[in-house]
Amino acid sequence: MNGQIVIGLNTVWMVIATALVFFMEAGFAALEAGFIHSKNSMNVIMKVLMDCCVGLIGYFAFGFAIMYGIHGQGGHIQWDGFFLKGNFTFLGLSIPVEIFWLFQAAFAVAVATIVSGAVAERMKFGPYILYSFLATVIIYPVSGHWAWAPTGFLHQLGFVDFAGSTVVHAVGGWSALAAILVLGPRRGKYNADGSVNVMPAHNLPLAALGAFMLWFGWFGFNPGSTLNALDGSLAHVALTTNLAAAAGGVLATLYTMRRYGKADPSMAINGALAGLVAITAGTQVVSALGAIVIGAIAGVIVVEGVGLIDRLHADDPVGAVAVHGICGSFGTIAVGLFATNGGLLYGGGLHLLGVQALGLIVCSVWGFASTYVVFLLMKKTVGIRVNRDEEDEGLDIAEHGVPAYASNSEIPAQIADMSEYFAKQMKEANVQA
Amino acid sequence: MNGQIVIGLNTVWMVIATALVFFMEAGFAALEAGFIHSKNSMNVIMKVLMDCCVGLIGYFAFGFAIMYGIHGQGGHIQWDGFFLKGNFTFLGLSIPVEIFWLFQAAFAVAVATIVSGAVAERMKFGPYILYSFLATVIIYPVSGHWAWAPTGFLHQLGFVDFAGSTVVHAVGGWSALAAILVLGPRRGKYNADGSVNVMPAHNLPLAALGAFMLWFGWFGFNPGSTLNALDGSLAHVALTTNLAAAAGGVLATLYTMRRYGKADPSMAINGALAGLVAITAGTQVVSALGAIVIGAIAGVIVVEGVGLIDRLHADDPVGAVAVHGICGSFGTIAVGLFATNGGLLYGGGLHLLGVQALGLIVCSVWGFASTYVVFLLMKKTVGIRVNRDEEDEGLDIAEHGVPAYASNSEIPAQIADMSEYFAKQMKEANVQA
Amino acid sequence: MNGQIVIGLNTVWMVIATALVFFMEAGFAALEAGFIHSKNSMNVIMKVLMDCCVGLIGYFAFGFAIMYGIHGQGGHIQWDGFFLKGNFTFLGLSIPVEIFWLFQAAFAVAVATIVSGAVAERMKFGPYILYSFLATVIIYPVSGHWAWAPTGFLHQLGFVDFAGSTVVHAVGGWSALAAILVLGPRRGKYNADGSVNVMPAHNLPLAALGAFMLWFGWFGFNPGSTLNALDGSLAHVALTTNLAAAAGGVLATLYTMRRYGKADPSMAINGALAGLVAITAGTQVVSALGAIVIGAIAGVIVVEGVGLIDRLHADDPVGAVAVHGICGSFGTIAVGLFATNGGLLYGGGLHLLGVQALGLIVCSVWGFASTYVVFLLMKKTVGIRVNRDEEDEGLDIAEHGVPAYASNSEIPAQIADMSEYFAKQMKEANVQA
Repeated sequence: MNGQIVIGLNTVWMVIATALVFFMEAGFAALEAGFIHSKNSMNVIMKVLMDCCVGLIGYFAFGFAIMYGIHGQGGHIQWDGFFLKGNFTFLGLSIPVEIFWLFQAAFAVAVATIVSGAVAERMKFGPYILYSFLATVIIYPVSGHWAWAPTGFLHQLGFVDFAGSTVVHAVGGWSALAAILVLGPRRGKYNADGSVNVMPAHNLPLAALGAFMLWFGWFGFNPGSTLNALDGSLAHVALTTNLAAAAGGVLATLYTMRRYGKADPSMAINGALAGLVAITAGTQVVSALGAIVIGAIAGVIVVEGVGLIDRLHADDPVGAVAVHGICGSFGTIAVGLFATNGGLLYGGGLHLLGVQALGLIVCSVWGFASTYVVFLLMKKTVGIRVNRDEEDEGLDIAEHGVPAYASNSEIPAQIADMSEYFAKQMKEANVQA
Repeated sequence: MNGQIVIGLNTVWMVIATALVFFMEAGFAALEAGFIHSKNSMNVIMKVLMDCCVGLIGYFAFGFAIMYGIHGQGGHIQWDGFFLKGNFTFLGLSIPVEIFWLFQAAFAVAVATIVSGAVAERMKFGPYILYSFLATVIIYPVSGHWAWAPTGFLHQLGFVDFAGSTVVHAVGGWSALAAILVLGPRRGKYNADGSVNVMPAHNLPLAALGAFMLWFGWFGFNPGSTLNALDGSLAHVALTTNLAAAAGGVLATLYTMRRYGKADPSMAINGALAGLVAITAGTQVVSALGAIVIGAIAGVIVVEGVGLIDRLHADDPVGAVAVHGICGSFGTIAVGLFATNGGLLYGGGLHLLGVQALGLIVCSVWGFASTYVVFLLMKKTVGIRVNRDEEDEGLDIAEHGVPAYASNSEIPAQIADMSEYFAKQMKEANVQA
Repeated sequence: MNGQIVIGLNTVWMVIATALVFFMEAGFAALEAGFIHSKNSMNVIMKVLMDCCVGLIGYFAFGFAIMYGIHGQGGHIQWDGFFLKGNFTFLGLSIPVEIFWLFQAAFAVAVATIVSGAVAERMKFGPYILYSFLATVIIYPVSGHWAWAPTGFLHQLGFVDFAGSTVVHAVGGWSALAAILVLGPRRGKYNADGSVNVMPAHNLPLAALGAFMLWFGWFGFNPGSTLNALDGSLAHVALTTNLAAAAGGVLATLYTMRRYGKADPSMAINGALAGLVAITAGTQVVSALGAIVIGAIAGVIVVEGVGLIDRLHADDPVGAVAVHGICGSFGTIAVGLFATNGGLLYGGGLHLLGVQALGLIVCSVWGFASTYVVFLLMKKTVGIRVNRDEEDEGLDIAEHGVPAYASNSEIPAQIADMSEYFAKQMKEANVQA
């Protein structure tokens, strides 16, 4: 009976944790849509929705098998898990495989979604869907296998990435960098003299709500990664996760106040997210104070990171590379420094730090390179970028035939009428002048 | 002690599942408000909020007693449950009746809310509240009793409707159809020659966020319907629910791309919801692949369904009839086809299919007919439709005295000033012309 | 083994409850931003985000120790809990202290956030952050200690405040009143003749979504305050919480319909919240019908309360004083009337009522006075109010350098161009006239 209760408890816990992680997609959608032009906002939400839909199907059919399906010893290698079929006892789960799968699927979807924000406002919808499918089917599962599968080589080396600073965030973030290097910047983002034009967020409150949703979802992302309600570290994971987020938000805000004289909302938002991303690898193995330090450093790094990426003319409309790529990488390394058992700063020497660096490099190179190749192949074949007119018009109309916001209330309708009338008047005035 | 742990676990599980189902009301509010004109968007949110408030009170006072309260044998019929008073041991619950009630109440509220979207932009607020009350007090409880109460005749026939494709969605959807047939279409929706005017969504990102919230809430709606954390099917329910949603979203998107050349956001959103609605009856008894097929079919059906309803000149601004009525009906029948134990496609013969068809027809006719009668009576007495001027002005101002969005920031204020100025100029220009 | 299961179950329950309470910050952000001018909406969201970030750090470093850390007997007084260090066995927890702390921290943050809405649209960002820090470090912990700590004097007197009608809401609400009395009203709110200008909500759908999020979060706020999944009252707490919310929403709506002829959305929203605030003290000890009565009364009180506060020329843009201060106070007193064991209306005499009144007065005076002093000191030193130009321009631009909504889509851009063009034309027209 006790065994049955434990399985029931763990199942319920993982269903809820999965729901929370899944809800992060709503957060990503709101964050990304809010940070960009209104004319492209529905397009990016559609891409996130498709990440969920195509990603779940892809991870069901192939991705899970590639990530977790290879097992056996000696000459008896088996490959299970395609369409969630096969024998999974080798995974040693204390929960039904269906909910283990669903939790993992929500992570797979997140990797693709990290890229969606970086390529926003200029990437074609169809090729994006194809990339999203490949990300959940191959790109994420391969590095995920290395780090998390019982047979993965990084796992066996003792690589620590509790909930995915590397596996999800660094892989997603460096994939995003590869994608935007192939795709090129938005029209009008960089001037001929190299200077940068700020493209303001069309709806910051929406972006901020997205950040709150992401933070909320992280209660599932990190604590859920225990996979086990009886894991004694569960409360500690919840604690360090939240302290790091708080420290990231505080530091990013203070840093922008000091540097620009004003508290920058985008940076405050990204600072809290940076703290969350950075703590995700070490949440279980660092102390509460360690978590605050990690979050605080991430809050500064992300501000500098956004600036750096922009100076490289890699156009990332939402800061995905800085938040996920840079802070995910920092968080992975931070385990080697701050782990209370084995971290350099706690007298643990260089071994763990070395393993963390190795794992980070291998996974990041894989994420960057595989995405670069996929984007390059798509560019040479189907094309990945909308044309100039479509980009100017906005992808909502160009790709989906509808605006995100229809001015169909009475007052906007008057304004719309006026706008035509006066556009004509202005033209005439110009002619006369 | 074990018994106490199990009750505690189940109670916690149901409190959380109820919270998730309740949060679907936020999703409905966002979805419906986003899909319609801004001038009516706060009115529809008020209706959803009143569904929650009036519905909880109504289901507490009467609805629950009607749905679950009749019991006893032979000459000893008892009727308990009014104001949640009485003896509920006959329900055989493994959770406190208070949380069983609250979970059921969240379902009752959802039925009324399905109707709120269909009647948006033209129905008076007061009569809507009256209908919402009757829906949670009588309409939903009667069909709910048939299908889910231990003494219900469909339940006793073996009717399978795990979490309510029929009881919630088909009843809500066909009630919505009855309501809009009595209410009539919005002004300007259909032309004299029978052609249809598209009325664009005023805020698609809001609608999409609503869809994400609904999907999130479905983690409570379906898995929560186990009522039991130790139910061995819980993880499977979570799995099939999500796979069907994903398949519905993919197919609706691909289908619109193929048919219209563009991925339609409204249809993508409704496709995912269609998959969720359709899997809700069979989530426990179909396989993962079966769930994908059911979701995929629902994703196509919903696109055709929205078109069909529109061609019938039944004006449904949010697609509630297609999503809930048509796909809820399909999902009910799909159990008879795809149930791995008893489904026609799995060699189970026609018996289950027949029971499913019977249950669907009885409940759908009841939902349609009862709502039709209520709307007709209200139309003949208090009136159900705002007048022409109020409809043109928008129900936010007409019914609530405030706009959803006040243009009170500096720049909109300038525009507002201009709009008066130029309205006058345009008038003069017209006079001169 | 059973003990381990119970701890695991309780830990999971509290992690989820904490996530829900934390998500209320998203709800506050949406509610407050929606209720005010768009030009200040991002500023108030930034303040809420900083409540979370600064508040978590502050409550970690000092607040928790002040609230719960003092213990021991006779001459052996100990003070633990700074930076969550020390011995916590004296708290008698059935959950890890880390998650007890995190749950409490989410409550501390809420107190500051209640104030953020009241001071919106005119308070400087820096001083607000300082106040938010002090609220979570001293103001809330002191009254929280009295009411909830094992060694608190109100706790020892039998003061009943299950989840914080007093400790969170009345303290927050009366602090908000003190803050706005020192701060003064928004420019243009009150005319020289004493009459009041309505400043309409810039985005009511956003505010309503915020209310739904808050209601959702209350599933964690009240049921989570059991701290224990095996608490037999858990389901009852969930029941009374929701019934009170429903009754508050219904009554506020009906009352405005009767009084103003129209169902007022802001009042409907605040009515549901008023019911939630009022039930929070007695949720465990009142009956279902008692909860409905408490919620209903709160729904009427809040409408009158908003009017009363406005007539006092205490400018509270979101109704925080009425919802949290007045209804939190009413809810505290209501325990003395409606508690089925000890309430006046149930024959329990005046003892409990007296204790409730005492606790309410002590905590309210503390909240009001301490906030008044802090605001006065800040006013005399760093200043608490943006200057006239900044207030007119809006705090989003003045404090953060960005607008909440950038008109950067094609159509708004045209309008923006026009606005300059026509502003010039209008000027000329005025010159000629």
